[in-house]
Amino acid sequence: MKLWKKDFELNREIERFTVGNDYILDFKILPYDLIASEAHARMLERAGILNREELKKLLKGLAEISSLNASGKFRINQEDEDCHTAIENYLTLKLGEVGKKIHTARSRNDQVLAALRLYEKNELDKIRALLKDYQDALRSAIKKYSKVQLPGYTHMQKAMPSSIGMWLGSYCDSVNDDLKLLDSIYGIIDQNPLGSAAGFGVPVFAVDRKFTAKEMGFSRVMGNPMHCQLSRGKFESLIINVMSSVMYDLNKLATDMMLFSMAEFAYVSLPKEFCTGSSIMPQKKNPDVLELIRAKYHVVLGEEFKVKSMIGNLMSGYNRDLQLTKEPLINSIETTKSCLRMMALVLSGLKVNEENCSKAMTPELYATEEAYKLVKKGVPFREAYRKIGEKFSDK
Amino acid sequence: MKLWKKDFELNREIERFTVGNDYILDFKILPYDLIASEAHARMLERAGILNREELKKLLKGLAEISSLNASGKFRINQEDEDCHTAIENYLTLKLGEVGKKIHTARSRNDQVLAALRLYEKNELDKIRALLKDYQDALRSAIKKYSKVQLPGYTHMQKAMPSSIGMWLGSYCDSVNDDLKLLDSIYGIIDQNPLGSAAGFGVPVFAVDRKFTAKEMGFSRVMGNPMHCQLSRGKFESLIINVMSSVMYDLNKLATDMMLFSMAEFAYVSLPKEFCTGSSIMPQKKNPDVLELIRAKYHVVLGEEFKVKSMIGNLMSGYNRDLQLTKEPLINSIETTKSCLRMMALVLSGLKVNEENCSKAMTPELYATEEAYKLVKKGVPFREAYRKIGEKFSDK
Amino acid sequence: MKLWKKDFELNREIERFTVGNDYILDFKILPYDLIASEAHARMLERAGILNREELKKLLKGLAEISSLNASGKFRINQEDEDCHTAIENYLTLKLGEVGKKIHTARSRNDQVLAALRLYEKNELDKIRALLKDYQDALRSAIKKYSKVQLPGYTHMQKAMPSSIGMWLGSYCDSVNDDLKLLDSIYGIIDQNPLGSAAGFGVPVFAVDRKFTAKEMGFSRVMGNPMHCQLSRGKFESLIINVMSSVMYDLNKLATDMMLFSMAEFAYVSLPKEFCTGSSIMPQKKNPDVLELIRAKYHVVLGEEFKVKSMIGNLMSGYNRDLQLTKEPLINSIETTKSCLRMMALVLSGLKVNEENCSKAMTPELYATEEAYKLVKKGVPFREAYRKIGEKFSDK
Amino acid sequence: MKLWKKDFELNREIERFTVGNDYILDFKILPYDLIASEAHARMLERAGILNREELKKLLKGLAEISSLNASGKFRINQEDEDCHTAIENYLTLKLGEVGKKIHTARSRNDQVLAALRLYEKNELDKIRALLKDYQDALRSAIKKYSKVQLPGYTHMQKAMPSSIGMWLGSYCDSVNDDLKLLDSIYGIIDQNPLGSAAGFGVPVFAVDRKFTAKEMGFSRVMGNPMHCQLSRGKFESLIINVMSSVMYDLNKLATDMMLFSMAEFAYVSLPKEFCTGSSIMPQKKNPDVLELIRAKYHVVLGEEFKVKSMIGNLMSGYNRDLQLTKEPLINSIETTKSCLRMMALVLSGLKVNEENCSKAMTPELYATEEAYKLVKKGVPFREAYRKIGEKFSDK
Repeated sequence: MKLWKKDFELNREIERFTVGNDYILDFKILPYDLIASEAHARMLERAGILNREELKKLLKGLAEISSLNASGKFRINQEDEDCHTAIENYLTLKLGEVGKKIHTARSRNDQVLAALRLYEKNELDKIRALLKDYQDALRSAIKKYSKVQLPGYTHMQKAMPSSIGMWLGSYCDSVNDDLKLLDSIYGIIDQNPLGSAAGFGVPVFAVDRKFTAKEMGFSRVMGNPMHCQLSRGKFESLIINVMSSVMYDLNKLATDMMLFSMAEFAYVSLPKEFCTGSSIMPQKKNPDVLELIRAKYHVVLGEEFKVKSMIGNLMSGYNRDLQLTKEPLINSIETTKSCLRMMALVLSGLKVNEENCSKAMTPELYATEEAYKLVKKGVPFREAYRKIGEKFSDK
Repeated sequence: MKLWKKDFELNREIERFTVGNDYILDFKILPYDLIASEAHARMLERAGILNREELKKLLKGLAEISSLNASGKFRINQEDEDCHTAIENYLTLKLGEVGKKIHTARSRNDQVLAALRLYEKNELDKIRALLKDYQDALRSAIKKYSKVQLPGYTHMQKAMPSSIGMWLGSYCDSVNDDLKLLDSIYGIIDQNPLGSAAGFGVPVFAVDRKFTAKEMGFSRVMGNPMHCQLSRGKFESLIINVMSSVMYDLNKLATDMMLFSMAEFAYVSLPKEFCTGSSIMPQKKNPDVLELIRAKYHVVLGEEFKVKSMIGNLMSGYNRDLQLTKEPLINSIETTKSCLRMMALVLSGLKVNEENCSKAMTPELYATEEAYKLVKKGVPFREAYRKIGEKFSDK
Repeated sequence: MKLWKKDFELNREIERFTVGNDYILDFKILPYDLIASEAHARMLERAGILNREELKKLLKGLAEISSLNASGKFRINQEDEDCHTAIENYLTLKLGEVGKKIHTARSRNDQVLAALRLYEKNELDKIRALLKDYQDALRSAIKKYSKVQLPGYTHMQKAMPSSIGMWLGSYCDSVNDDLKLLDSIYGIIDQNPLGSAAGFGVPVFAVDRKFTAKEMGFSRVMGNPMHCQLSRGKFESLIINVMSSVMYDLNKLATDMMLFSMAEFAYVSLPKEFCTGSSIMPQKKNPDVLELIRAKYHVVLGEEFKVKSMIGNLMSGYNRDLQLTKEPLINSIETTKSCLRMMALVLSGLKVNEENCSKAMTPELYATEEAYKLVKKGVPFREAYRKIGEKFSDK
Repeated sequence: MKLWKKDFELNREIERFTVGNDYILDFKILPYDLIASEAHARMLERAGILNREELKKLLKGLAEISSLNASGKFRINQEDEDCHTAIENYLTLKLGEVGKKIHTARSRNDQVLAALRLYEKNELDKIRALLKDYQDALRSAIKKYSKVQLPGYTHMQKAMPSSIGMWLGSYCDSVNDDLKLLDSIYGIIDQNPLGSAAGFGVPVFAVDRKFTAKEMGFSRVMGNPMHCQLSRGKFESLIINVMSSVMYDLNKLATDMMLFSMAEFAYVSLPKEFCTGSSIMPQKKNPDVLELIRAKYHVVLGEEFKVKSMIGNLMSGYNRDLQLTKEPLINSIETTKSCLRMMALVLSGLKVNEENCSKAMTPELYATEEAYKLVKKGVPFREAYRKIGEKFSDK
């Protein structure tokens, strides 16, 4: 049963279309609605709308849903539309009148926004931890091979001497940029939207939004209810942008690794149990895991542009279009988490072939150094440059 | 068991990551692999690699899979990786040595490409039919209300007289453009890729690619095996571009309908059983179906750019990245089909409020006509324009 | 002076903002407005709105603009907004009343649409010719080196034997796909929009749209004026999609060439006069031209996304937003033309190092062939595969 | 003359292609190269590579370029490739040997990175100031009309009472989110890249990077030279993402204003000197400035996608592709600045029609309030909801 049920039936085909796969996606969101619902219920009790006994019942109901869900037994039916309705329906079925009361001074929009934002904060916490794990994996690899020299490339051509330490170290430093980015986005979204109702506040009742903010762990209240609506899609874009920033590094590192593990370079190799084979070519040992990490950067980009394109040219206030920002958000986050995990795993197995690296350190890599040695002896740089340049020009 | 199984185990986490959700998506593709496998088997028999008996067994095996799948009983396990392996595993399990023989002169790449292209042709056929249904729905609505006048807008301002016939008629004509586009893309992809093996052809055996083309209904063979690989991702981009072209029209029509059904216009309305309600506002009647059609244009755009971004900067020959073009392709097609269906349904229920339309035909809409009447009387257009313009300027 | 000049001044800052760089871009469009204006003038004369003498004067005026423009002396001022106004202003200044008459039964919208479409058809013709030049350059290179074998790669790993003929031949075949695509898009846009006025047709006067279609070389009339508006942005998307399809091939060919010209492969090389150097590393010979071709694929993608995102969620009828589709269109076309030219040039200078190619033909490339030889001797393929696989596995 | 000039000529066509429009774009960057060059020269003097006299000459030369540029007289020729070379060429021409010395321990890559980052910091400062101006303009408009009520919409349908204060206030609050975002991105990019040379550091000489950081006002040094390269494109993406975040708000506000100024609403209006007319419809008063702001959000999105797509799948170390991130960066920044200015201007002229707003406050907007009043009297919310809902249902 829908929260907005009227005296006629929604066309079945349209119902299926509008519900989409929310009833599946929402299992990610459900635990956070329970948290928000608890905060809301406690607020209602403080405001005298629920009495102690009613609050107790509701909290018990919410706890039941939580444990049902933890054991995979809570169901969100397509007719429920989403997790928010499924929760209210469960409470009403179990508790009768009391179950209905929790929707006082709250709209589904409220629930969606609050649960989503709690989900987002929690996921950003997870990404932060995974970024640190990945950074640790980089540090371990650097520790093992730091001193090994290998060619540095510009324009895909041998340029100057580099080292495993410099190469992997750059990715390690870059994680710090992403951690800063993540923390600042976390700081921006850390605002309580609960109490904005359908986007214009709750009439008649005064909702204690500071109280629910504290209960849910938000650092401040998003005061203007229309600001809550305005931030939808926008905050999701900012979060997905964190993901695409993280994925950019992984994309490049995967690209480097694949190139450097080609037989023509053989600077590094992956353990065979990380590689897949071919159905027709018996000799193949393919770095699928890296190819997929590379490709998934673009998956996240696509999700980012879905959201950013979708939220344009819309009037203010809630539009149902915003529902479709949920899947790209979840997909981007899940993709990024799995790629961070995979890359840390790959790094743990990465072998550097020191001999091949050493052999690759051919003379032209030292051309700049030679030029600078002439400069030290008093030759102006541009002259030294031309002199050394001639040595390496095509005959 | 994988087609490329070796004497070591793939790391389990990496396995899960690389398989992704292929084992789910592939139910869309499976029926087409069966068609391609049948064609391949018949070719092998003609070439003397299979004898009559073996062919018969294989065809029976394929037919079994087909009917198991039709009744939802065929399983693709995560360990199978995808439908192609699941099919070979089934055949091997049931038929022993004979089951293995079908993989002669064929690689999984072959299977994927052939099955995918058959799927694509079939889906384009479905989209063509749905486009015509949607066009019929437009024609029916036009027939009902053709003569009703309503304002035409430019810059979101009343401009000149329009009519339901002109308004919906423009969408009707535009379908013809999309049908042409669809047919030409169909013509481009209608090339048999089977026999390209891993992308460099089959050594030793001569594969009769013209025969398999005919068996599968392709109009010609894609001769150069590297061309087959080059076309992957590219053809998918072309197909998704058909989808985004179709969705553009639906996006605009949905936008028009939502605007024209606002209380401030009320030119058209949707039956209430097509609309959803609000959990907090008792009076609401929301056109969610149209909002979602509008938003889904952007979903398709995101999928299109996923694919186009993903296939860039890759060397020729197969890269595993290409696997990730499958989901955006399927998602775009499914989205477009459902939106075409929904829009035809909405059109069937659309009501035009002739009285409101008539009231909205205010004098400024006829300003250009008035100017032209002066021109007819000999006044130069720019003068007539200024004269009439003054009538409507802000005081 | 603007075509819509009223008795007050537009705010100067807003004027600059709204005009943007149209007054520069429009030099690309201007010659096509002259063609459309001539057709319109001839139609007006046939309809009796202009007399013979007036037509003659107008045609003379248009011819003057054409020759002024050809010698770089025609000016489009920022106050003129665009080329369409600049033309009318010139005619009015030179011919007085007669100059004003050409705007009868036509709006600026009309002019923009007609000129733009003529420009598009003409540019597609140029792209077609350049595609054929590029295909010829591929054919010449193939002719020189067709028989040279080099490794074929999958998953960026040596896979099976390939050849220069197969490699470049795949790009050659792929041009045919793009030519088909281009021709079909040409066929779709080949519809006369002139006469749609501001998007709702011309009142009072009957415009002979078949006549102007014939004059301008359009194969048919776009009957419904709202269809003309609906097609704006949509047709541009289709055209830019042709560009991104062409650019995809160039991106991949450039990627291949850069990889194959790395010292680690050295299968091919570019003449030194095609390469640039480094300001600090004397030995460098960088393939900038290929790197830029690679990058410009993404430039075109960005332009495509701009247009497709921009035209979403807009009500029907002209919106000024559409003005901003012009620059991405022109930029995509110009980018594609220059990249096609560059790639043909690069191909003309490409050297294949046969010795290096030959050395790279290492035994694992023949693993599949070996397996198939066993199959010929009666070993089932999966067994042959395992047997040969062991030979190449890591010890 | 190029910094990397050798004894052969670059093919002219390829030269034109690779230089592109850098020699035009670089006027934006030039002033920042002068700052970085000064810092570098001072560092060289401290390191004993330049003597006092030489430093003095160089600083004088840089100052000359600065004043030439300020008066529009400094030229960057196509043969110079870019501003960095133009500067060195000028110094060498004027100062001879001394002019060449400034390139010691520095590569063009260094110059580009340092100048670009200084440019970026400076532009972010400008955007910050413009955001505050825009916020002030919002505050002034709110002050004038704060109490005026107007309908709040969800699903593009009248929902609940809103007010000018709540509506514009939400945009005002949202600016604070963008200011936080901007400040954190500023903090992330505030790292000195000078001294990374071609991306692998300077051999032989020890560059005092802390000194140059202080001279140029960077808060810290980007230690690992490969980190500098890794950050290219990535930092630009982050900056453009700030732009798209700001533009999102402007897009929505423009959309609201256009809708609310339609005759069907007429809640607000723009002064006529902010509007443009039609060439055919004498009565038109079009909000082009708002339409273009709306569209330019998508322009920025396209630029963002260009950069993010372009930097994918590239190996580490400098690739020429990165040159093409400069134009999207500059274009996004310029677009955002002009749109912020335009919106502040529009807000200054915005008139609210209080009478029309008041008339639009129809009874259904109070349905939720009525329901809550029943709740206050003890009716459970879901019952109150149904009761009030019936009042507003279609008969």
